[in-house]
Amino acid sequence: MTDAPTTAPVARAATAGEVLAGYLTAQAGAFLRALPQAVGEAGSRPGALPASAQAADDLLRAVRRVGGALHTFAAAFDPQWAQESRTELRWLLNLLAQEPGYQRRATRLLGALDSLADTSPDGAGMLAGHAGAPKARALLERQLTLARTRAHTALLQELRSARLHALADRMTLLAGEVPLAAPAEPAAALLPRAAAALAALVGAGERLPWQRSAQAYGGAGLHRLGPAEPAAPAGAPAAVPPARTAADADAALAADDAPWLRARILVKRARYALEVCGAPGEGLRELDGVLARHQEASDAAATVATAARTPRITPATAYVLGVVHADQRLEVESARYAFGRQWPAVAPGLVGPAAVLPA
Amino acid sequence: MTDAPTTAPVARAATAGEVLAGYLTAQAGAFLRALPQAVGEAGSRPGALPASAQAADDLLRAVRRVGGALHTFAAAFDPQWAQESRTELRWLLNLLAQEPGYQRRATRLLGALDSLADTSPDGAGMLAGHAGAPKARALLERQLTLARTRAHTALLQELRSARLHALADRMTLLAGEVPLAAPAEPAAALLPRAAAALAALVGAGERLPWQRSAQAYGGAGLHRLGPAEPAAPAGAPAAVPPARTAADADAALAADDAPWLRARILVKRARYALEVCGAPGEGLRELDGVLARHQEASDAAATVATAARTPRITPATAYVLGVVHADQRLEVESARYAFGRQWPAVAPGLVGPAAVLPA
Repeated sequence: MTDAPTTAPVARAATAGEVLAGYLTAQAGAFLRALPQAVGEAGSRPGALPASAQAADDLLRAVRRVGGALHTFAAAFDPQWAQESRTELRWLLNLLAQEPGYQRRATRLLGALDSLADTSPDGAGMLAGHAGAPKARALLERQLTLARTRAHTALLQELRSARLHALADRMTLLAGEVPLAAPAEPAAALLPRAAAALAALVGAGERLPWQRSAQAYGGAGLHRLGPAEPAAPAGAPAAVPPARTAADADAALAADDAPWLRARILVKRARYALEVCGAPGEGLRELDGVLARHQEASDAAATVATAARTPRITPATAYVLGVVHADQRLEVESARYAFGRQWPAVAPGLVGPAAVLPA
Repeated sequence: MTDAPTTAPVARAATAGEVLAGYLTAQAGAFLRALPQAVGEAGSRPGALPASAQAADDLLRAVRRVGGALHTFAAAFDPQWAQESRTELRWLLNLLAQEPGYQRRATRLLGALDSLADTSPDGAGMLAGHAGAPKARALLERQLTLARTRAHTALLQELRSARLHALADRMTLLAGEVPLAAPAEPAAALLPRAAAALAALVGAGERLPWQRSAQAYGGAGLHRLGPAEPAAPAGAPAAVPPARTAADADAALAADDAPWLRARILVKRARYALEVCGAPGEGLRELDGVLARHQEASDAAATVATAARTPRITPATAYVLGVVHADQRLEVESARYAFGRQWPAVAPGLVGPAAVLPA
């Protein structure tokens, strides 16, 4: 699939219902096409699931977009139906995202370790030839494979569940007829709702401590983790991190990363809102990419910190894990720096009515 | 002391001998004033040496400047005397630089560790509250204190040696009468020699792989250490690093850092050559500062890597040392990035006759 919006833009549609129905019908169709491939043929051996990584990706893509549209344009739908649908979509999203997440994390961490331990004359790393490197690699690979296998098993158990069948029925309904609250509402009524999604992002983006990462190598990802953010205002996603209290590195890092992870959710919502309206969102796609790198490096660093607490590892293994942990926190810092360089160019385009008008 | 040149500039002096004698007399005088304080009063207890850190700094300052002038303007002096003097000054330089070097390294490493392990809510580090942090701190402190004590003892043994007395006599001679090869040579004859020192720096600077660090967070200090540099051309300092062969991280890092350490020697020589001529050298002073940071971080990282090989440390200690090692290599990378941002502004001013003309 391409990223081009699949709906008729707002300008050419008569009613908000037509615009939303066009978008959701297309996404629900993509969901229903991807589902059998992702779940596998009926009767195929369970171990072979999911049959297609591409189908799983397409499924995730559709799940995110339908969920985002139901959130941003919630007032346009039958409230109970929209709420239930979002809950079920979030359940499937969490289920589907686990395994590819562990896959990407393994690729990232083993790649970083191999690069740090590279001994070739033209590209040696700071752990070149270190005795702990193969042991640390084996440890990370073992732990990530185990986590991935568990996620896969959990997915298998749910992919043929009654709950998934009910969600598929819900999407079949959506592909035919979207349950709208006020079908005759003019299309322009969508614009303030999309604008609100952009405003939520701009508000969260301006509160991000990206000025702390405005200078390269400020060490913000290693030293000087910031204070926990003030409580998010109403309308922000519910996942507000707890205020930092414990003198604990994991908690400090999680609290430091939380506003950035929340910003990514808002970027995605804003992207899909613009897609519904048929407005261009290239800058948001780039921000999403930067924040994806931030999140993956943050998750990878946490995995390494956990691995370093494995009992009975050798000091050499622990030392290598320390280097890899710092390396991934450096990636976190690098992503924040990149965000700080992109944000001032993207943010002004998200404010005002022009931002949500179709191209 | 200030950094203002203490000689009459080239333009106002009649002969090269007058310019050099003016500079060297002032520096030898500074040497002789600082020496008794650095060595301590005759009869004071040996344990109290050196009596004054400021005096030791002043002594180092004078030693570097006299040595630099004797190197750059070698042709102006009696060759055997100049060669012998440089050998003796280098001996004293190595002796004097050890202890403050360990002092600075301890300040840097313990400061970095304290910052990484900081648990305060507004500035927690990625090792906040980590069980290995106090152990790693104690280990580094113990090893650096031991190294510092050894350097101190070695200094004490030599500070009242016949060799030092002979060097002091040499400086006394220099403060009175500089043994010049051709005292009547015109002052302008110094300019091509100073220009050669600048050209050596420009050549080495252009060969530095700073383009590899032109992008922030390129990871050059952790990943992708470069190949050993091609052999330096004639005229470059003798300390050419051996070509990288061993699949060994320490060797790879040392080879990666070597061209930068060499560049710092050339920056200092160029600075002192401009000082002799009374020409401004502000840009070089800044480059020297950046390369000093590079060298100190590189040395600190090597100290941590060595400490991590201490037998019977706990995995938690080793993990913390891995983080600190990566942190210091990040500082190395940061210094290279800073160099790459300064060099294009400084280098053009070092080329051509205007560079060495007095202000």
